[in-house]
Amino acid sequence: MKVNGKSMRSIWPVGDAAVKVIDQRLLPYQFKVCELARAGDAEHAIRTMMVRGAPLIGVTGAYGLALALRADPSDAALAGAHARLLDSRPTAVNLRWALDRVRDAVVELPPSERAAAAWEEAGGIAREDVALNSAIGANGAEILRALHNRLRRTVNVLTHCNTGWLAAVDFGTALSAVYAAHDKGIPVHVWVDETRPRNQGLLTVWELAAHGVPHTLIVDNAGGHLMQRGQVDVVIVGADRVTARGDVANKIGTYLKAVAALDSGIPFYAAVPSPTIDWELEKGEDIPIEERAPSEVLEVAGLDADGNTVRAKLLPEGSAVANPAFDITPARLVTGIITERGVAEPWRLRDLFPELPPTDD
Amino acid sequence: MKVNGKSMRSIWPVGDAAVKVIDQRLLPYQFKVCELARAGDAEHAIRTMMVRGAPLIGVTGAYGLALALRADPSDAALAGAHARLLDSRPTAVNLRWALDRVRDAVVELPPSERAAAAWEEAGGIAREDVALNSAIGANGAEILRALHNRLRRTVNVLTHCNTGWLAAVDFGTALSAVYAAHDKGIPVHVWVDETRPRNQGLLTVWELAAHGVPHTLIVDNAGGHLMQRGQVDVVIVGADRVTARGDVANKIGTYLKAVAALDSGIPFYAAVPSPTIDWELEKGEDIPIEERAPSEVLEVAGLDADGNTVRAKLLPEGSAVANPAFDITPARLVTGIITERGVAEPWRLRDLFPELPPTDD
Repeated sequence: MKVNGKSMRSIWPVGDAAVKVIDQRLLPYQFKVCELARAGDAEHAIRTMMVRGAPLIGVTGAYGLALALRADPSDAALAGAHARLLDSRPTAVNLRWALDRVRDAVVELPPSERAAAAWEEAGGIAREDVALNSAIGANGAEILRALHNRLRRTVNVLTHCNTGWLAAVDFGTALSAVYAAHDKGIPVHVWVDETRPRNQGLLTVWELAAHGVPHTLIVDNAGGHLMQRGQVDVVIVGADRVTARGDVANKIGTYLKAVAALDSGIPFYAAVPSPTIDWELEKGEDIPIEERAPSEVLEVAGLDADGNTVRAKLLPEGSAVANPAFDITPARLVTGIITERGVAEPWRLRDLFPELPPTDD
Repeated sequence: MKVNGKSMRSIWPVGDAAVKVIDQRLLPYQFKVCELARAGDAEHAIRTMMVRGAPLIGVTGAYGLALALRADPSDAALAGAHARLLDSRPTAVNLRWALDRVRDAVVELPPSERAAAAWEEAGGIAREDVALNSAIGANGAEILRALHNRLRRTVNVLTHCNTGWLAAVDFGTALSAVYAAHDKGIPVHVWVDETRPRNQGLLTVWELAAHGVPHTLIVDNAGGHLMQRGQVDVVIVGADRVTARGDVANKIGTYLKAVAALDSGIPFYAAVPSPTIDWELEKGEDIPIEERAPSEVLEVAGLDADGNTVRAKLLPEGSAVANPAFDITPARLVTGIITERGVAEPWRLRDLFPELPPTDD
């Protein structure tokens, strides 16, 4: 997508010995590109949320494993780097998938060929992700087109967190649907949840503004009221993980929007590329929920009166804080899952992937 | 309640020509007492949220009207001050009630006697509010006692916004129940919603810490997840207004917690003194919802690294923001209303007030 009129992705290779990423912790205030030249850089980028969003985390991990093999292509180094990178964000099933894929592509090769093959595999994952997200956008846009055809006015979408191209390689997931609809001339307006504690909604505002999509920032508390008053036509979110039965693990607060959407009769969709679907796992309750640092809750980043970045501390260090990073939206609250293959009710999700082995039951 | 071991109320008279209040905009960082010596001071204190919470707004308005009459006891001045004070917070039914009561108490008197009578009436409203809130606390504590008797462990309460003594004259509404239970030895722990956009949850944390009640701060997004995982036993909130059928107008985001509580089978109570009940109004949808300034959303107050208060601006001025201040929790989501007379299901609320005239239907 575009930044200052220039086409941009969230991660791109520099020759064959490093990748560049945008330091997303500095957005929307500062646009800074960082080079990741070692596996440790990639691990650090994932752990500190310099990069965020399931697809981008996966691609960053894949390039990280390739960088590790450039330093040491041994079996031990491969296993060690795989484990360390995986540990940098245990909830993200995409990360495991991408790391496994790179490992599987190179493990049978002689060590001298591994780094180049891993680099090629990581690039392939990135290219496939762009294709996946483009297809998700096209499928999601059809939902917005149908709503527009029925309502004959601007379609109001509510979204949570950031699911745009910053969270992917390009296009994004939930926002890909918005971009595709907007680019096809379907009038859309997006209610953007601030998304405490990390305020990723501000990234969504930044993206939408850069692309010219009408939008309004709201606090996380406001969405239910807007739904009650008929000001939301559809909720579309992304996911960190979707289980086989369609339970959706996503940024904390997603469940509150889903249960309110049901209460107001508003459709609720999760837009995910298929690598985000964990076919091995049935119940959302079995997904471990990361408890993140209290400082995420206690400190809010912004600009001071002079335009310098500042962190406002809400309460003293040591205040009692709980900070669960994700919640689970049960499938019964989910109208449909938007994938690159099409849109399906949760219980029909597997039907979109006929190549999967039949389930036991 | 106590601050640094010293008993304190949120508003108190100084002689008979001024009242003192705590500038609650500076809390929890700075404890500053301000004198209101004119009606305009009271109006300003309400409008700028130096004072907040339905009961305290009412008492501040009542004293404001008394101060206006001290400057000019004419009929015209009485009507003008009543209108200006009422306009400072149109959603607050308590404010209207308190202003009407002072006006009605003095309008028949000769102008020379009005100021003293109004002052006495305002003091009476304050004293009655303390008695009301004390009774609400006793009634609410019985709910917590019953939960404790059933669970045989600490009772986990989730609350939204600030409903403690800072929002009243003393004790508070929802927090009054918590204080009463705690003081009676019933083990309670409070999940405190941050309550964006104004972060009144920080005042709740400040109050609970000052009184020694165990508590944990969470972002507004987290409560649903905690409910799903069995970590919340009861939700208790206050209200800006309750309709005759039991719809609850309260700080934005309350509805999201109520609908999630129902989804998880958790009881949801609103604790209100009877002046907050608007017997004239049936449907919550008919309550006008204030749209407040975008700056409330765009700027977050806190302390910088040096301990100075700072406002972190999240996005540039002029960014598209919506900021509805309240939402309506429909009676069907409300387990009970806690009042000074007792606790009742919404449809039985009127039964607690047999002195009311029978309804038409």
